[in-house]
Parts: sequence; structure tokens; C-alpha cells
Amino acid sequence: MKAEIIKLLKERQGYVSGQELCCRLGVSRTAVWKVIKQLEAEGYIIEAVRNKGYRLVDMRDVLSGAEIESCINGGPIGARVVYYEETDSTNTRAKALAEEGAPEGTIVAAETQNAGKGRRGRGWSSPPGSGIWMSVILRPDLEPSRASMVTLVAALGVSEGICRVTGIMPQIKWPNDLVLSGKKICGILTEMTTELDVIQYVVVGMGINVNTHGFPQELTDKASSLYLETGKTWKRGPLMGAMAQAFGMYYEQFLAAKDLSLLKEEYEKRLANLDRQVTVLAREGAYNGICRGIDSQGELLVEKEDGHISRVLSGEVSVRGIYGYV
Amino acid sequence: MKAEIIKLLKERQGYVSGQELCCRLGVSRTAVWKVIKQLEAEGYIIEAVRNKGYRLVDMRDVLSGAEIESCINGGPIGARVVYYEETDSTNTRAKALAEEGAPEGTIVAAETQNAGKGRRGRGWSSPPGSGIWMSVILRPDLEPSRASMVTLVAALGVSEGICRVTGIMPQIKWPNDLVLSGKKICGILTEMTTELDVIQYVVVGMGINVNTHGFPQELTDKASSLYLETGKTWKRGPLMGAMAQAFGMYYEQFLAAKDLSLLKEEYEKRLANLDRQVTVLAREGAYNGICRGIDSQGELLVEKEDGHISRVLSGEVSVRGIYGYV
Repeated sequence: MKAEIIKLLKERQGYVSGQELCCRLGVSRTAVWKVIKQLEAEGYIIEAVRNKGYRLVDMRDVLSGAEIESCINGGPIGARVVYYEETDSTNTRAKALAEEGAPEGTIVAAETQNAGKGRRGRGWSSPPGSGIWMSVILRPDLEPSRASMVTLVAALGVSEGICRVTGIMPQIKWPNDLVLSGKKICGILTEMTTELDVIQYVVVGMGINVNTHGFPQELTDKASSLYLETGKTWKRGPLMGAMAQAFGMYYEQFLAAKDLSLLKEEYEKRLANLDRQVTVLAREGAYNGICRGIDSQGELLVEKEDGHISRVLSGEVSVRGIYGYV
Repeated sequence: MKAEIIKLLKERQGYVSGQELCCRLGVSRTAVWKVIKQLEAEGYIIEAVRNKGYRLVDMRDVLSGAEIESCINGGPIGARVVYYEETDSTNTRAKALAEEGAPEGTIVAAETQNAGKGRRGRGWSSPPGSGIWMSVILRPDLEPSRASMVTLVAALGVSEGICRVTGIMPQIKWPNDLVLSGKKICGILTEMTTELDVIQYVVVGMGINVNTHGFPQELTDKASSLYLETGKTWKRGPLMGAMAQAFGMYYEQFLAAKDLSLLKEEYEKRLANLDRQVTVLAREGAYNGICRGIDSQGELLVEKEDGHISRVLSGEVSVRGIYGYV
């Protein structure tokens, strides 16, 4: 009910009458009034005028299950939202929930993670109030070998969601980091559990630096936030809603094609190093080439000096570009 | 300490003096005496003779963490044992323990499972006192696509372990069921969690019908147990120890080759349908052929009527053989 009241207040430019809220939600005026009081306590600034009703004047950057739910606008991502004030890692929670049968599209989010995870066992700093730390449970009916493409779909969704809200479009550092001015603002960690040739679930974790005001000195060249790049703070709920919607849209296109053929163009538009020199740090040695985009399987196409195009598998290499190593 | 006392008592034909136990384990005579009393309460029949010491005369089919540990004889499987009187599913527990960092070779076993899992979300009956319900955590440094071979390695290990203890060698119904007289006595469920191209862990669950005296009528043609096939009851601890050792040995050979090339011959020796007609129930339709073994990747080789050999991927099909559908 709380999420529905928030949503109604946000959608309406003017007042929503108590009567309307009662009718729509099938609850008493007292129940509505109690929720309004709760919302005010959480940081929503609500004007109440006799004979007119309630109006949302402004709000703090509230993060809660109800706030996130109020920002979801259909689509496969966000059908269920699980929110923690603090948790170890939203990916760990999402995996545990998936084991218990949580459905596709479940979003697991936290105000702060005390054991946030990066790739390859690295940590991920997730202080409260400054970022979006969320994981999405997916259950695609695909061969496990195709699941790595979900990471690219998520990168596309997060970039598009940020663009819709802020007007600036983060570039994608293949396969799955987002950058602004060459600095990382988002990392994505995809984990998957399979039973031999069948995917049980995929968990896509996204860490986005939103209102972070600064980073430790050793990271200032490498990391940034939406705040640092735009000079403004951003509300995380609407950002999450936009990301969920964009990710869901791209995810459906991915499932329809079973590969990235419908998304390749959109992805390449955002590809940070397109047509620039990159160094591929492959297992068998490093080599230089020009980044020529991706193929329909999500592999990076790198043109070597002899004109030969090599296909770089996700994760097999690091790619070094204009903005340094990551 | 308990496992070490059990092991010493089992290894020694005659008496183990209290003094020796105290010295070896660095504990007092009273501590040893207390453990002996515990063991007697659990079902170990121990003779205590003044000036000689303790002798293990016989034992019930005790299952406990200490009993299982006492049956482990080195190798990569069984370095750690986690035992539950009752749990939901040893695979579910093993996955949770793996998430918390449990090392390679951890064995998770239970006297009974109340939500035992079979393949593709099916259930697995796991009554107390009658079977071995155990899962093994592995962390192979392999591409995820190679992990399906672990299932075949496990099948080989369980077959060999049973053979070493009972003298009869269960056949393998490719890829991962064990059969005796054409009836299933063991099923294996392999689950895996990956981070894109990196395996985080593999959990291999094994359900073995050991002392089961009977099955529901609809299963009597399909399922059997070591008891029903040999006319004897078997102690589960030594069986688990032998399986762990054999599985560990084959697992090391698998890791060395990164495929089944060193194990192919051993596997084919046990392959139930070798050189017999099988029906492959592929997605695109069923066809008949003669089973000609496996290749080094664990794919089943099926010779069609025109002499062409088709390679059947694990899980892609069901194979129907002389002993009916499974």
C-alpha cells in the first residue's frame, strides 16, 4: 500500500484526495493518514490541505522497499523488491533468495553493503547514502554458455537508465563497466548457478556511484560518481526505476534473439573504445589493435595490425584503453 | 579427537592401550574414557580389558561426522566433513557452505534429507538409516564448460568405491546414474556456480541406496539398493571413505588432463550400454544407434545405422537402453 501511495503522489502534479486514496486502496482514512505520517518521517515532504488532500512537495533521497517499488513501471525487472538497510552483499542475498525460489525479476537492494563484492573475489566499497547497490535475479531459459551476454545487457540497461534520468550517457568499457570522462562509475558482477546444462538462476549485481562526493586518493584517477560528473545529487529510487525498465526492455530483446544481435548497435554506440587503440592482455601475451565493436555473442572485435580481426571472449582478457587500466 | 580414536580402533586388529591413545592425542585418560563411553552409546561395541586397553569388536551402521572422518584416507575429497542428522538437502547445504568459503574437498552428509533433490527440480527420497546422501564441494580451476565432466568422474568414483567395499561393480548409465541388474542404485546431481568464465564452486551430490529393504511398487522395476542386490547390509562409513578416495584419485587425473582422456577406458568398462542399442531422445526427435563409448569430453558416442557417429552432449538427451527408461 505504501508503494502505491508514493506512486500516486509522485504521478499527480496536484493534490490526491484522501477519499481517492481510500477508494483506490480499499483502506480507511486513518490507515492512509498513518502511512502519510510514516512517509513524512522517512523524508517525503507532503503538504496536506483540508478538502484538497495530499501533495508531494519534495523528498529526500529516500531509499526503501516501498520507494523502489513506487519507481518500477512494469517490465520483467522489479516484479518483486527485497530491500535491506544493511546486508553483506546484495549478490549473496540474491543467490540465497534464488535458492529459496525467488522469481525472475526480483530486485535485491541495500542502503549499504558490509561485504560488497567486485569481480574475482575483490571487494566493492558500498557506503550508505551514496550509491545504488542492487542485484537482479534472472532465470533465462538459455544454455549456460549464453549467460555471459546478460552482463552486457545489464551494462546497456544501466547506461540507458542513467541517461533517461540525468541526460548524460555513460559509456561502456567492455564488457561491463560504465565510465564517464574515462572514470568508472559502475561495475557489474554476474554470477550464475547451473545444473549441468540448465541455468537455475543468474544474479546480476550492479554497483553505481551516485552521490559519492569523493574517493580515496589512489582512486581519484579511476573512479567517479554521477554527482562528481554532473555537479548535482540524484535521487536513487527514480534512477533504479529507470535502470530496471531499460534493463528489462533490453533483456526481452536479448531473450527473443537469444543473443545480442538486436542490441549490438545500441551497445556499440556506447562502447568507450570503439575505433580506438586497445591493448588486449590475453593469457598468451599482450597485443595491440583497434577496437571494432562486438559480435552478436558479445565478444570484442579487435583488429590487429595485419588486418586480422580477433574475437576476445568476455573475461579472457583485460582491455587497456585511453583511460588507463582497470 | 573422536575420529582419531575411531580410526585407531579400526586399524588395530588387537587392543589399543589407553596410554597410547593419551600419548597420541595429547589428552588425559579420563578424556579418552569419556569418548569411549560416547562411542559405545552411539553403537560402537568396544571391549575394555585392564592392562590391555580398548578393542573395537563390532559396530552398528553408525553415521556421524567422526565416523565419516575416521573413514577418510587422504586425497582431495574429505579434508573437511560436515554432518547433519537431518537437513533439507546436502546440495543446498553444500552450496551455502561454499558461499561461506568452505574449501575444496568438503563433504556434506546427512542421515536423512527432508527435501532431497534429484535432477531438474525432481525430489529424491532420502530416508534415515538406509542410504548415503552426501555432497562434495569442488573448486576446480577450469573453464565452466568443462565442469559437466565432473559428474562422470563422480560416477566413476562411486562405482569404484562400492566395488572396493562390496566386490560388485555397479555399471554406469551415462552420464551419471549407477545401476545394478539394470536398476538404479545411485543418482548424481551436479550444480555449479560461476562468475562469468570462472568456476566459483561445483557441488556434486550423490544419493546411494545402501540398505534400503524395499521401494514403492511403482519403483521396484527401476530402483534397487546394495542390500537388495547383495543380500547383505553394508556400513555406510567405510563405503563413503572408499568412494571419497576413489573419487579423489579420479578427480586428480581429471584435473591433470583437464578432460577424461585418462579415465575414458575405466569409464567405458563400466558403461551399461556399451555396444548395445540405445535410443537417443534428442530435442529434434528420437533415433536409434549403438552406444560406442564416450569421447574425452564425456560425450556419448552413438553409431547410427548409416555408420555415422553422433556425439551426444550430457543432458541434451535421455538415453533409453535395455533396462528401460529413466
